[in-house]
Amino acid sequence: MSIQNPVFIPGPTNIPEAIRKACDMPTIDHRSPLFATILHPAIDGCKKVLKTTRGELFIFPASGTGGWEAALSNTLNPGDGILAARNGMFSHKWIDMCQRFGLDVTQVDVPWGEGLPVARFEEILRADTEGRIKAVLATHNETATGVVSDIAGLRRAMDAAGHGALLLVDGVSSIGSMDFRFDDWGVDVAVTGSQKGFMLPAGLAIACFSEKAVAASKSATLPRTFWSIDDMRKGYAANAYPYTPAVGLLNGLKLATDILLSEGLDNVFARHARIADGVRAAVKSWGMSPCAVSPDLYSNTVTAIRTPEGFNASTIVERAAHEYGMAFGTGLGDVAGKVFRIGHLGQLTDAMALSGIATAEMVMADLGLNITLGSGVGAAQAVYRHGTPIATEAAA
Amino acid sequence: MSIQNPVFIPGPTNIPEAIRKACDMPTIDHRSPLFATILHPAIDGCKKVLKTTRGELFIFPASGTGGWEAALSNTLNPGDGILAARNGMFSHKWIDMCQRFGLDVTQVDVPWGEGLPVARFEEILRADTEGRIKAVLATHNETATGVVSDIAGLRRAMDAAGHGALLLVDGVSSIGSMDFRFDDWGVDVAVTGSQKGFMLPAGLAIACFSEKAVAASKSATLPRTFWSIDDMRKGYAANAYPYTPAVGLLNGLKLATDILLSEGLDNVFARHARIADGVRAAVKSWGMSPCAVSPDLYSNTVTAIRTPEGFNASTIVERAAHEYGMAFGTGLGDVAGKVFRIGHLGQLTDAMALSGIATAEMVMADLGLNITLGSGVGAAQAVYRHGTPIATEAAA
Amino acid sequence: MSIQNPVFIPGPTNIPEAIRKACDMPTIDHRSPLFATILHPAIDGCKKVLKTTRGELFIFPASGTGGWEAALSNTLNPGDGILAARNGMFSHKWIDMCQRFGLDVTQVDVPWGEGLPVARFEEILRADTEGRIKAVLATHNETATGVVSDIAGLRRAMDAAGHGALLLVDGVSSIGSMDFRFDDWGVDVAVTGSQKGFMLPAGLAIACFSEKAVAASKSATLPRTFWSIDDMRKGYAANAYPYTPAVGLLNGLKLATDILLSEGLDNVFARHARIADGVRAAVKSWGMSPCAVSPDLYSNTVTAIRTPEGFNASTIVERAAHEYGMAFGTGLGDVAGKVFRIGHLGQLTDAMALSGIATAEMVMADLGLNITLGSGVGAAQAVYRHGTPIATEAAA
Amino acid sequence: MSIQNPVFIPGPTNIPEAIRKACDMPTIDHRSPLFATILHPAIDGCKKVLKTTRGELFIFPASGTGGWEAALSNTLNPGDGILAARNGMFSHKWIDMCQRFGLDVTQVDVPWGEGLPVARFEEILRADTEGRIKAVLATHNETATGVVSDIAGLRRAMDAAGHGALLLVDGVSSIGSMDFRFDDWGVDVAVTGSQKGFMLPAGLAIACFSEKAVAASKSATLPRTFWSIDDMRKGYAANAYPYTPAVGLLNGLKLATDILLSEGLDNVFARHARIADGVRAAVKSWGMSPCAVSPDLYSNTVTAIRTPEGFNASTIVERAAHEYGMAFGTGLGDVAGKVFRIGHLGQLTDAMALSGIATAEMVMADLGLNITLGSGVGAAQAVYRHGTPIATEAAA
Repeated sequence: MSIQNPVFIPGPTNIPEAIRKACDMPTIDHRSPLFATILHPAIDGCKKVLKTTRGELFIFPASGTGGWEAALSNTLNPGDGILAARNGMFSHKWIDMCQRFGLDVTQVDVPWGEGLPVARFEEILRADTEGRIKAVLATHNETATGVVSDIAGLRRAMDAAGHGALLLVDGVSSIGSMDFRFDDWGVDVAVTGSQKGFMLPAGLAIACFSEKAVAASKSATLPRTFWSIDDMRKGYAANAYPYTPAVGLLNGLKLATDILLSEGLDNVFARHARIADGVRAAVKSWGMSPCAVSPDLYSNTVTAIRTPEGFNASTIVERAAHEYGMAFGTGLGDVAGKVFRIGHLGQLTDAMALSGIATAEMVMADLGLNITLGSGVGAAQAVYRHGTPIATEAAA
Repeated sequence: MSIQNPVFIPGPTNIPEAIRKACDMPTIDHRSPLFATILHPAIDGCKKVLKTTRGELFIFPASGTGGWEAALSNTLNPGDGILAARNGMFSHKWIDMCQRFGLDVTQVDVPWGEGLPVARFEEILRADTEGRIKAVLATHNETATGVVSDIAGLRRAMDAAGHGALLLVDGVSSIGSMDFRFDDWGVDVAVTGSQKGFMLPAGLAIACFSEKAVAASKSATLPRTFWSIDDMRKGYAANAYPYTPAVGLLNGLKLATDILLSEGLDNVFARHARIADGVRAAVKSWGMSPCAVSPDLYSNTVTAIRTPEGFNASTIVERAAHEYGMAFGTGLGDVAGKVFRIGHLGQLTDAMALSGIATAEMVMADLGLNITLGSGVGAAQAVYRHGTPIATEAAA
Repeated sequence: MSIQNPVFIPGPTNIPEAIRKACDMPTIDHRSPLFATILHPAIDGCKKVLKTTRGELFIFPASGTGGWEAALSNTLNPGDGILAARNGMFSHKWIDMCQRFGLDVTQVDVPWGEGLPVARFEEILRADTEGRIKAVLATHNETATGVVSDIAGLRRAMDAAGHGALLLVDGVSSIGSMDFRFDDWGVDVAVTGSQKGFMLPAGLAIACFSEKAVAASKSATLPRTFWSIDDMRKGYAANAYPYTPAVGLLNGLKLATDILLSEGLDNVFARHARIADGVRAAVKSWGMSPCAVSPDLYSNTVTAIRTPEGFNASTIVERAAHEYGMAFGTGLGDVAGKVFRIGHLGQLTDAMALSGIATAEMVMADLGLNITLGSGVGAAQAVYRHGTPIATEAAA
Repeated sequence: MSIQNPVFIPGPTNIPEAIRKACDMPTIDHRSPLFATILHPAIDGCKKVLKTTRGELFIFPASGTGGWEAALSNTLNPGDGILAARNGMFSHKWIDMCQRFGLDVTQVDVPWGEGLPVARFEEILRADTEGRIKAVLATHNETATGVVSDIAGLRRAMDAAGHGALLLVDGVSSIGSMDFRFDDWGVDVAVTGSQKGFMLPAGLAIACFSEKAVAASKSATLPRTFWSIDDMRKGYAANAYPYTPAVGLLNGLKLATDILLSEGLDNVFARHARIADGVRAAVKSWGMSPCAVSPDLYSNTVTAIRTPEGFNASTIVERAAHEYGMAFGTGLGDVAGKVFRIGHLGQLTDAMALSGIATAEMVMADLGLNITLGSGVGAAQAVYRHGTPIATEAAA
């Protein structure tokens, strides 16, 4: 496979030149003052991206998924009740992790393509008068289906139910690309990784804890060492880690937050929305539709595209990789073979996005789908060109 | 301007990842045996790309243009007669250089968009019974107009005329991307640079001399030091340079020739032809035509595109850069404002080429040209997609 | 702090140019065939470095320390008995992790500077007639004290005791730099990281499991997801990971194993021994001694140096960093303030080692220690120079 | 040869990490506004390093040596008289270039190791009542002998003689490392390269012209195109070059001047003096002496070291490269075999310098010279250590 083309997997994203250079560091002493000048700005920058002043943020030298384990193990006890919906592969996997850790999950099954069932959650929480449920899990953006859920609404529902469970949110494929308000939404633990909105290679799990979550950690009995926020906090106070940190990635993260904040988060989010609108316009021109069942659920970081009945969507991904050196995402779990995914997060230009759309068209035409070459590109160009006002399909 | 998009200037080209890394070297001693393991393979690789076993090849640490000066100053004497055609900016500039060096140029003016007037050259050479003309200059590929000239035919004409002038060829924007046969075509000096078919940054001027050209250098009296092939030859014999070489670029050149030769020169040329065909299909779908007046003159490294009468083609280049972060080439000299240029040389993928075509479409639509968005992309996709045989417009 | 000087911390090591470039990769699809061409050679290369054909090796995208957690959580059950010695900070920390996971540790306290008490372990194992002890922990190289322990001897003792406990070995600061024989020594789980003998940045935890350890994992009930070797094995079978891998680091690891195996492991170990001999010769010339109490315990990757009674060794590290831009390691735990450490692992040249020794001398002289400038350098030069046979202090 | 060790050739220097990254750029359009943001700051930064506000500075995409050709060809006419001293290989080569260009050189032979014979020059200029001499050449720092000459004194002598010749100065191995005052010293053309004090790879020739030199260029008839400052000036006015520039190197040069000016030129020069003092202290401790015959001539960028009568100094360089992977400079021309050279320019740390001195010692001991290992290192450490005032041998 060529490594010249941009990738259109929903993360890791394409890495901007400057960030690659920031990550590619010679070895420094990770117990030196120089390290402190990397660590603290990286943490502070992340907090700004998460829109939190109250949260306490930790960065683990591990894949983003490890953040899930940090969220659970620092706040919960064996046997604790968990409320979670299964509406995609990543919510599915987090539930599976809970079960392995001996947590007692109330699982709400939701068709893939739909969002978090906020009203149903509210009912369940109201019914939990004994407070058996200790945490509600929410996947802000389901990477498998391209569905964004309403975290603010979930918080309102939890409050309306008068329930004191912690709100643990997976923001892996949203944070840094779509609006995320840790403080305003009353999130208790937010989890993300370096390889999505932060545009870094994989290797950092970022987890932010509210005061309430930190308080829970004082008595939480799930075993933890690598993921211990207590050890991490002690390390940070001495400008260090309890073990060896991933210095280059932290240096890249520091720069990534600088870049995002300099551009302005609203501009970053608008940029993602604009690129996503173009992709969705292309999808529509192909006579297809997103997996997400309604425009309010459309993700601005990834679009899962339903292909015609009887067609194996995975062949698109295989042929694109093999014949054109371009990477898209396959369908996973319940939607395997039914969708393929175009990731459109990170620092994509219009031209990059169009190259992905154009390649998808060639592949689909090759595979016998009824696609007019140039049609999706033309539809996206109409969104991207500067001469006319930009239509925002999701807002229509 | 974003540095994420590929560039579509007709050189320097996009630099493949591996070549960037080969160029980015720590300092080594340029008089050490390690340097020899870089220098000689780079020279040998270049000779294979030029298809010469008889030529003697020199690599100057300078921009490609310096190679013109090496060609002249090593082989000629003040007042020597030169035969040259002016059919674009680069042939124009080489003529200007000759005049500055006190050479006596017989200049044949040719409309820009046409190739070398081989028959006219033959006439002139036949008429030069006193052998006043010491060298014939030929621009293999006119980067300003996207016109490729017939060097093999020129050699036949020179032989037919029974004229002994040296044949000096500018292959800057052809060598490494289009077929070039130093030995078969009887070229006496061929000049190129690092930043085109070799896909490196600018900084190396490559000049190959035939035995006849080397013999001429023994008595040539134009002054030279930096460009002296005698000094250079002595240096190489000691695995060194007469001054400080550009080691990193040489290391990159060594790799670049490895890459080209591993792919196979015929495959490299076919790839360039294929990408160029797609661009030309797009141009046709826009209702425009190349500056090159006939298909046999179409360059496979750059297409200069005539825009409608009364439209300033340079605004396309300006708007593309400013609004979309994408670089095309402007028209130069006689065709300034009348053409814009899409460079398509080096290691472009289909997807990259399509991103350039798609961006050009948006820009032209923005500027009020009657362009259907997606039309040129669709035409190029029809060339690039793998499901059907690839049409070769130039061969049609 | 300057980032021009080599570092002399006992890991992460200086990263060779070629390995930095291998790690600095553009994003590829980690579910593509291209990824398979990175993953499997990296695993195979590691197995060769560990000298195992029977072991099953897993690479986690996490700091090396995480490997400890993988070793425990995949093989043990809450309440299981563990036998471990505390002879340095890293053995101390692994014991602490065991306790957090609810394991029942029989801790043997050993003065820091001594090795694993093999005979005492044998006694304890003989006494454990009920098989309460399920695992023996061994730190092959104590990074805090520069002490190497006898793993082969420990295996013989376990066999002599007829005890069936698993042998879990921390080889973080030995593997790739000193001989390690997974199969011959009957190791059940070996743990290491990317940032020591493999000369990469931190970010990979490498853990190798024997058949017996894999068998134990079938019934082990400690909770695990991120560290699950079962999930990992399933992923590898599909050329993938259960979550996002650290692709660039894996690519670097593939190259690192190529480099080590091309040099020849015996040559790599001899090189480390030679560099270490020079450092120890310098220490002797300063009138000081290693923390390791006898030559058979001398580590070839790090030397902890006892400074005179009453002197705060940490001031050496601080001053070296602040005044000379050079990083050494401080004393940790029981030997804090009593030793400073010179790391000498990875691809150090003689010249690099001498620059560290020379800087240490200037710092010690600055701080009033009775050091003759050039004395330690001269002693090390006598070891490093090629004109005379190289003395091996450890073998003396 | 290892590429891990610093180099101790007198240029190209070791390249700081940040400068390597600045040079390693993706391709941009060299006719775009982005290029202007690189070009003009690079020129302005160079002018500050040369301490000129009146000079007009040009940067050629070529090795530094090309700057000599620019200096001559832009200001002189065939047959013009030149006054020059031959006191090392580089002054020798510049004289040779003059002769090739048909200039009439009055050559003053000076023993290698001595500086410019200012008094003798004054005599000659006084005697040139007809103004036959059009230019005086001066090599500020003879890289072959490690001799710095007195340019300010030369200007005073020229003024005292009332002679109107141009003063052309080769500052290749001084500018950026030692004080250079273009305006104050009345220099007419100063020439340097990217690969010495600017710490870049080779590939840029930098030439600064006074108003008087620019005026001379209006009538100068030596042929020039590549080196034409007229063409260059027209290009710069349009934010461009007359041919393809070396964009990455210019970007590195912009950063290099930022780095030098941020440190402060006086600090940069003091740093070079300090490192050089250490090297000279080592030389003295070895019982040897610099080639430069008196302390006022000692170069702070390179020390040529005379080895004992009958010993072939070049064997030191060969053995260091072959056995220890370290690069020193050989003796050239008149002092071939009699000296070896330690380059100490660019961003060397104390530790790096000590590693070079230590390696030289091992090599000399290997070769049978009477060297006490550690002696030179100890002497240099006494200069470098921070605890006591730093002695400046040259000032003693």
